Amino acid sequence: MSLLVVGSVALDSVETPFGLKEDVLGGSASYFSTAASFFTPVQMVAVVGEDFPKAHLDFLRARGVDIDGVSHEKGRTFRWKGRYSWQLNEAETLDTQLNVFQSFSPQLSERHRDAQYVMLGNIHPELQARVVDQVRAPRLVAADTMNFWINGSRPALLKTLERVNLLFVNDAEARQLSGEHNIIRAARAILAMGPQRVVIKRGEYGAMLVEKEHLFVCPAMPLADVFDPTGAGDTFAGGFMGTLATAGGSLDIPVLRRAMVMGSVMASFTVEQFSLERLREISRSDLHQRFSEFKRLTHFDDLPVLDA
Amino acid sequence: MSLLVVGSVALDSVETPFGLKEDVLGGSASYFSTAASFFTPVQMVAVVGEDFPKAHLDFLRARGVDIDGVSHEKGRTFRWKGRYSWQLNEAETLDTQLNVFQSFSPQLSERHRDAQYVMLGNIHPELQARVVDQVRAPRLVAADTMNFWINGSRPALLKTLERVNLLFVNDAEARQLSGEHNIIRAARAILAMGPQRVVIKRGEYGAMLVEKEHLFVCPAMPLADVFDPTGAGDTFAGGFMGTLATAGGSLDIPVLRRAMVMGSVMASFTVEQFSLERLREISRSDLHQRFSEFKRLTHFDDLPVLDA
Repeated sequence: MSLLVVGSVALDSVETPFGLKEDVLGGSASYFSTAASFFTPVQMVAVVGEDFPKAHLDFLRARGVDIDGVSHEKGRTFRWKGRYSWQLNEAETLDTQLNVFQSFSPQLSERHRDAQYVMLGNIHPELQARVVDQVRAPRLVAADTMNFWINGSRPALLKTLERVNLLFVNDAEARQLSGEHNIIRAARAILAMGPQRVVIKRGEYGAMLVEKEHLFVCPAMPLADVFDPTGAGDTFAGGFMGTLATAGGSLDIPVLRRAMVMGSVMASFTVEQFSLERLREISRSDLHQRFSEFKRLTHFDDLPVLDA
Repeated sequence: MSLLVVGSVALDSVETPFGLKEDVLGGSASYFSTAASFFTPVQMVAVVGEDFPKAHLDFLRARGVDIDGVSHEKGRTFRWKGRYSWQLNEAETLDTQLNVFQSFSPQLSERHRDAQYVMLGNIHPELQARVVDQVRAPRLVAADTMNFWINGSRPALLKTLERVNLLFVNDAEARQLSGEHNIIRAARAILAMGPQRVVIKRGEYGAMLVEKEHLFVCPAMPLADVFDPTGAGDTFAGGFMGTLATAGGSLDIPVLRRAMVMGSVMASFTVEQFSLERLREISRSDLHQRFSEFKRLTHFDDLPVLDA
């Protein structure tokens, strides 16, 4: 079923203890689309500047990403520059140049307005709402957000959340948005704001899916070699939504749980290399193999029956 | 099979955002023994002072803990005073009075020297080694340690680790001991120091079991109400070792994994109240119920078979 993502396409410069890469393909929509494209065709709505390499567009198109919704504007592409320390968790942002992204205002084509699964990448909540205005009858609208909007555009964000079915946030964002420290309470407070589901991303510690009457927790794939965590969260969302979009409209619990694990599995590939390098190399059967490995690493048997 | 623990018995004063308790039963051996006593008789080797309430000894004895190895010395019992902030993770130590614990030198009786499962609580690594000297033919020797010994008594600790089969540490301790930031690399570096198994405790994020050719990761039981995390790690170890001690000598992977989950489950009860209050209330069937709940919260299905 059709999956639409609205978000950023960027040229990233990333420094980790293992090296430095300049002007590589980045942005939430790029990671999301590439991850989701393992499962389903993806429609991407984004903006790039005159300096955006054609090779990146060719790559996305070759992956089955419909880039008709990527508008080409005068000026430079959105650029982000960040650095990771040995902890390899949160990036220190060294530079952000919004460039053409500054005046991004997503316009959906007639075809895109029929999207059934919609991912609102991490953009201004008012822009996210404008996308929701345009889609006709989505099966699921998911959104991402960040501290910048939680702090700076809270009223707009709360309005958007009322129209969102699923929110992706990390621990810190969930706490900031809800005012609750305990992560279960934080998730439940977010459910009360509108979304029927919250996915809490916890980096190397895994992820959690919280619905009113349902909870699923999963650890992260343990990795001895983490190279560059950029895009892990967007990859997670792409693997998650891509998996859902292949489930024939079902949002049943086993489907959602498989989507969570597939999100984790995909993110575990992304962090093994800079940018989208690792996702370019792997096949769907690599995903299946790691999914099975994940299952083996986390499986435990039931207890023997207790004597009365 | 027989399970022996050597460690501290303390009177704790704990302040959390939810209240304050003074001079309550604490110490690694108390938490460990109480947790393990759900599964198997426990032999406790520890020291208390003249001020130690008889009621606590009665409680332990009633739980099937053999307290013949608890020596009564002149002076006051070991006291620890700590405070937790809203984060409810690491305690700020406000006061430590070693008292009779300062000159603790564990002497095992003839009977105790036949123990098959041995837990070396968090005491000086030389004292831990002296316990290993005294046991005759243990099936498994497990140990706990902390930053204080990792920093201050590293050579002694490394000597002890050569004689230990399983080490319990938290993330930070694993990193400090190994000098590796990545937790998988840290665990493997510790394996190279002697232990055949390392259990990494990650608090609210769960735990990980690392052997040379085997890895198991499990999340923590998600809890909306964490009251007092004191003793969670010792409870985990007690539930883990207690489960092992009922497995007829097996250290097979399914047994170890069940022990990990049971450790998590038990710790999830401990943190729901001050001191050992919650463990006093529950039955083995409560443990089984929560174990099953844990399984439900973490279960996911295999992927459908991939088309060729």
